Amino acid sequence: LIDLRSDTVTRPTSAMRAAMAAAEVGDDIYGEDPTINRLEARAAEIFGREAAVFVPSGTMGNQIALRLHTRPNQEIICESRAHILDWEMAMAATFSGCLIRAVASPAGYLTWEQIAPVVHAKGSTFSAATGLIELENTANLAGGIVIPLPVMEEVLHEAHKRNLPVHLDGARIFNAATTLGGDIFENVRTLTRSFDTVMFCLSKGLCAPVGSMLVGSKDAIDEARVYRKALGGAMRQAGVLAAAGLIALEEMTLRLHEDHANAKLLAESLAKLPEVQIDPATVETNIVIFNLNNRSAAEVTSGLKARGVLAGATGPKSVRLVTHHDVDRNACLRAAEILGEVLEDAAVAARS
Amino acid sequence: LIDLRSDTVTRPTSAMRAAMAAAEVGDDIYGEDPTINRLEARAAEIFGREAAVFVPSGTMGNQIALRLHTRPNQEIICESRAHILDWEMAMAATFSGCLIRAVASPAGYLTWEQIAPVVHAKGSTFSAATGLIELENTANLAGGIVIPLPVMEEVLHEAHKRNLPVHLDGARIFNAATTLGGDIFENVRTLTRSFDTVMFCLSKGLCAPVGSMLVGSKDAIDEARVYRKALGGAMRQAGVLAAAGLIALEEMTLRLHEDHANAKLLAESLAKLPEVQIDPATVETNIVIFNLNNRSAAEVTSGLKARGVLAGATGPKSVRLVTHHDVDRNACLRAAEILGEVLEDAAVAARS
Amino acid sequence: LIDLRSDTVTRPTSAMRAAMAAAEVGDDIYGEDPTINRLEARAAEIFGREAAVFVPSGTMGNQIALRLHTRPNQEIICESRAHILDWEMAMAATFSGCLIRAVASPAGYLTWEQIAPVVHAKGSTFSAATGLIELENTANLAGGIVIPLPVMEEVLHEAHKRNLPVHLDGARIFNAATTLGGDIFENVRTLTRSFDTVMFCLSKGLCAPVGSMLVGSKDAIDEARVYRKALGGAMRQAGVLAAAGLIALEEMTLRLHEDHANAKLLAESLAKLPEVQIDPATVETNIVIFNLNNRSAAEVTSGLKARGVLAGATGPKSVRLVTHHDVDRNACLRAAEILGEVLEDAAVAARS
Amino acid sequence: LIDLRSDTVTRPTSAMRAAMAAAEVGDDIYGEDPTINRLEARAAEIFGREAAVFVPSGTMGNQIALRLHTRPNQEIICESRAHILDWEMAMAATFSGCLIRAVASPAGYLTWEQIAPVVHAKGSTFSAATGLIELENTANLAGGIVIPLPVMEEVLHEAHKRNLPVHLDGARIFNAATTLGGDIFENVRTLTRSFDTVMFCLSKGLCAPVGSMLVGSKDAIDEARVYRKALGGAMRQAGVLAAAGLIALEEMTLRLHEDHANAKLLAESLAKLPEVQIDPATVETNIVIFNLNNRSAAEVTSGLKARGVLAGATGPKSVRLVTHHDVDRNACLRAAEILGEVLEDAAVAARS
Ligand SMILES: [Ca+2]
Ligand SMILES: [Ca+2]
Ligand SMILES: [Ca+2]
Ligand SMILES: [Ca+2]
Ligand SMILES: [Ca+2]
Ligand SMILES: [Ca+2]
Repeated sequence: LIDLRSDTVTRPTSAMRAAMAAAEVGDDIYGEDPTINRLEARAAEIFGREAAVFVPSGTMGNQIALRLHTRPNQEIICESRAHILDWEMAMAATFSGCLIRAVASPAGYLTWEQIAPVVHAKGSTFSAATGLIELENTANLAGGIVIPLPVMEEVLHEAHKRNLPVHLDGARIFNAATTLGGDIFENVRTLTRSFDTVMFCLSKGLCAPVGSMLVGSKDAIDEARVYRKALGGAMRQAGVLAAAGLIALEEMTLRLHEDHANAKLLAESLAKLPEVQIDPATVETNIVIFNLNNRSAAEVTSGLKARGVLAGATGPKSVRLVTHHDVDRNACLRAAEILGEVLEDAAVAARS
Repeated sequence: LIDLRSDTVTRPTSAMRAAMAAAEVGDDIYGEDPTINRLEARAAEIFGREAAVFVPSGTMGNQIALRLHTRPNQEIICESRAHILDWEMAMAATFSGCLIRAVASPAGYLTWEQIAPVVHAKGSTFSAATGLIELENTANLAGGIVIPLPVMEEVLHEAHKRNLPVHLDGARIFNAATTLGGDIFENVRTLTRSFDTVMFCLSKGLCAPVGSMLVGSKDAIDEARVYRKALGGAMRQAGVLAAAGLIALEEMTLRLHEDHANAKLLAESLAKLPEVQIDPATVETNIVIFNLNNRSAAEVTSGLKARGVLAGATGPKSVRLVTHHDVDRNACLRAAEILGEVLEDAAVAARS
Repeated sequence: LIDLRSDTVTRPTSAMRAAMAAAEVGDDIYGEDPTINRLEARAAEIFGREAAVFVPSGTMGNQIALRLHTRPNQEIICESRAHILDWEMAMAATFSGCLIRAVASPAGYLTWEQIAPVVHAKGSTFSAATGLIELENTANLAGGIVIPLPVMEEVLHEAHKRNLPVHLDGARIFNAATTLGGDIFENVRTLTRSFDTVMFCLSKGLCAPVGSMLVGSKDAIDEARVYRKALGGAMRQAGVLAAAGLIALEEMTLRLHEDHANAKLLAESLAKLPEVQIDPATVETNIVIFNLNNRSAAEVTSGLKARGVLAGATGPKSVRLVTHHDVDRNACLRAAEILGEVLEDAAVAARS
Repeated sequence: LIDLRSDTVTRPTSAMRAAMAAAEVGDDIYGEDPTINRLEARAAEIFGREAAVFVPSGTMGNQIALRLHTRPNQEIICESRAHILDWEMAMAATFSGCLIRAVASPAGYLTWEQIAPVVHAKGSTFSAATGLIELENTANLAGGIVIPLPVMEEVLHEAHKRNLPVHLDGARIFNAATTLGGDIFENVRTLTRSFDTVMFCLSKGLCAPVGSMLVGSKDAIDEARVYRKALGGAMRQAGVLAAAGLIALEEMTLRLHEDHANAKLLAESLAKLPEVQIDPATVETNIVIFNLNNRSAAEVTSGLKARGVLAGATGPKSVRLVTHHDVDRNACLRAAEILGEVLEDAAVAARS
């Protein structure tokens, strides 16, 4: 089976399993789990922040951040394909009492020019005030693209001038950082330094079985711990997970360029198929989204599945493939081949 | 002063004032206000429904309806310029715990074809389930347009096939009903009969000083009374307001065609101004939205204000005028004239 | 009919009806209703505060205040019979996201000694932080008793030392102020000066048909207007209600001592009935709660109703009578007489 | 160190660590983690229910259950020391929009006689409707007492007659089941069979590092998965935790009688100390709460800590000790001895 549905399907490595079995643990609800404490300190250090907190999922990390920065009856601005809008079960409304003000941007990320017209000042009795701006880097549903640094910095600068906080959904921020070349930790600091809070995942390309983190100021993270407890995300001897998380953070961050190379390779192979629309130059990280000319995404993903390749439909005629640690170069090449076969068979069937 | 900012600025008529002073009242929180009871029974009768409830505002009527039909962690589908999204202070999130899934439609109303792709089934752990579809008729920010009956009926039919409730924000439903010609009450039944709940306002073109109503089944309205109490909208001797409301409902509904004629006249006058873009044929009710070629809306509304005409900017280069009971035909013609002067002065200033 | 169920049943006076009919109005959602503006300015002046806002009900005034002072996931401390706990439809939870931490006090009001043990500091990940302390004066369900000034001042002093805001549900604060003797407006300032916000009702003993007010700092009231709009409590030409409200505030506040004298008289008459337990000395304002020795409250209130006296059961063997403008001295004496007859009949029936 | 603060401090056993390292895993968000699936199926089987779902904490399990059974603007009835009231960060309000209606019961559990007077019917516009009754067994803050079966069955019977659901916080239900003697799994079914949903913890006396479960009907658990996702509690390769959870469930449930014997022994030793008030007969499970005559709880717990015994204060003069897997019989005896020394030293200091 070549599972390209998502990098979330990665399994913990042998080193992670060994570390979990040997982990020194304590009761993290009393703040006494040494491995959790080590992971949180190390994440804060890497991101150049005062503090970090471990959470069971990216959704929880994001939703805590939304709560930190907003009050009920406010709006949160994000791009129209943002994870917080489409895949977090309307929790911005339920837990933070805020609506999401979605702005569609073909590029997949928002510029300040796009954001400015929908910012509402606090105190109006007509329009709900903007409480927060949220960015996502890499932008998953936009094809894993990386937000250009100047675009992001303008948003941060203009937002902060207006006392508007900005949260980063950095579920795959290490993928973005990888594209800058050079020191990954320095890059991640460059890409995140001006955000009020940053969430990132240990569990996607980084292969930890469970866990994400929220980083920010000491005050923000102290308050985040209150909301984590409320959401039921404070766990007891969580050090067993942190042990894997430390390996994810220290070691697995260094190999993401392999996933990117495989994604590029895959895109290049796909580009040769007549039925497929894709510009390999747009594949910046580990996500490959391509469009079909005549076939439906449902037909193609089911054809792939029948031949042992798992992929996801992201629209009626668009398919997403995500490369990761558990699918190597050869498997990617094989997946492209199989797609060719599937499309060929479909073309034959259509002609007959 | 010619106030064309909104039909909300209408003042109670002399007949209303006399009725308020003479109103028979009781404690409506005990269900004992005879004038409220009379108004609620009459509204139910006119709309051909089991029950109706009086509320202090259209916002409250809509927000109660959203609560009636949804559960937290769901989504509400509406057009991207809907009142419930833009002007109700994010209460769909705060009070109902739901996100709004906005779909942009240049026409100002949604077809089933536009709605279908964003409907999410209940039970998914990936996408928040669709709890409600909401339509607005007339569509205020789309220029007071009337949703074509077949479009609306298709939405209702398809939604109900999927057990999806549909609420109508009919703040100006009597304006829509007026455009059908013939018996206004029969028309209003035609336009609203398949909706699960309907909110309409007594306070806009109908001139009541305060009040809106929600109509529906007995069960829905009984539950609505629970949420009205929770929101603080249950009032004591509210019969003083209902007395005006009865006149609004029985008498003022019969004269809305005058406002529509004035709006059309206004649009025709404006169409002659070189700086103004407007197609008078698109003006169906009492709302006139026009675009400016070179001037800004802010400049124009402030020029108008200086000459005693109040208008509202609805975009950087778009202005809204709303006709109503307190502005007669001559005042509308005068307003068009003044706009001509303002634009002329601006043109002169620009040339010099 | 002698209606002693509540002072909410008061009807607007002739002067109020005349004022409503003649009221100068404008669109209060644009801040342009001159009568509303006059009422709000006058209420602020009387309470010695920066600002006041008109709301359709006491429930809305209280719920706005709870929102102003709290954040979700906090607790609100109040006495176990508080209106905000028992009669406001759980809105502290739904709108503010807070639990109520009820403390039972036989006296009907809380001392600091009773409050201190349940105060939780902000920042704990174990106990929800205390966001607000709420007092009610007079305490309705405790028999309209007045909180002793030193008790109240200690609570305010200790709370403020800990940066804990304190809101007053002063639905009947003018009744409390009346008991101090002398200038009613000076008294009301004395009783409310240290609270962060105060809600009071125009619609109970003060006879306005609809309306309550929230007073506080300019910042608090500006924010209150945001939540009033969200709750659907912003109304258009609300000046018709404010006209009655001004008379309630200026004139009807001066006559509450009559209701108190009638309540005392009623209590003294009831105390003579062998079946009734009541100490007239405990009746401080316009509320009389008495216990029955052998009869049930349901039996007695239904016997009273059959003879034209309306009263409310507040427990299996306790009954509440509330005096007000629409029930004069003789009617109160007559009600006591009728109660005697009802109890005598019941005793006869029991013996036979 | 003898840590008697809570059974939450238990560490995973060697068998658990080995199982975690070897666990077969998949992506549980896709429903593909075989070890999670095995744990959920086995929990359902043991409890004799259709389905079960794994959650990261008891708080999340309880809060999901509150959401399942209630609507916003309702009330939840529970005993005044319930975990959901005191230790779950007001989430009943924030996530479910419900107030908690606490009823104090010296026994530590509620009888139907105590519940009945505070049940409010649905549909009232005066009192928030009762949405749910919640029981806790064993009742932690009441000293780990077990609710008598007939008391519990009467509550369930009367509640269900009124269509009121009842949720069990069975964080320590296996401790309760242990006290019945005989087959632990049969006992747990006896104690839980009539509840609508049951939450139990794998992480307290059962020693799993992380995790709790919610069991109920298929429909309830399907909906629970929606809320688990919303709360951020759906995790990826969670099988690593489930592997430990399976051992907790199958094996660790069989040894809880040891903790109970140690608690009894501890209570008997403490009862001999003149300063301590405790009746060993009241110690039914693994929780020992004792009162001090003259010393403060703070003084005593800090004296204990200085000598290597950790205990928790549950009131100004009351202390809680909890026995568990990681503290054996001798350690318990030693803890009692140390407490004697601490109290003796304090008495000497007081006399001098
Ligand atoms: Ca993974
Ligand atoms: Ca009006
Ligand atoms: Ca949109
Ligand atoms: Ca009244
Ligand atoms: Ca443990
Ligand atoms: Ca209590």
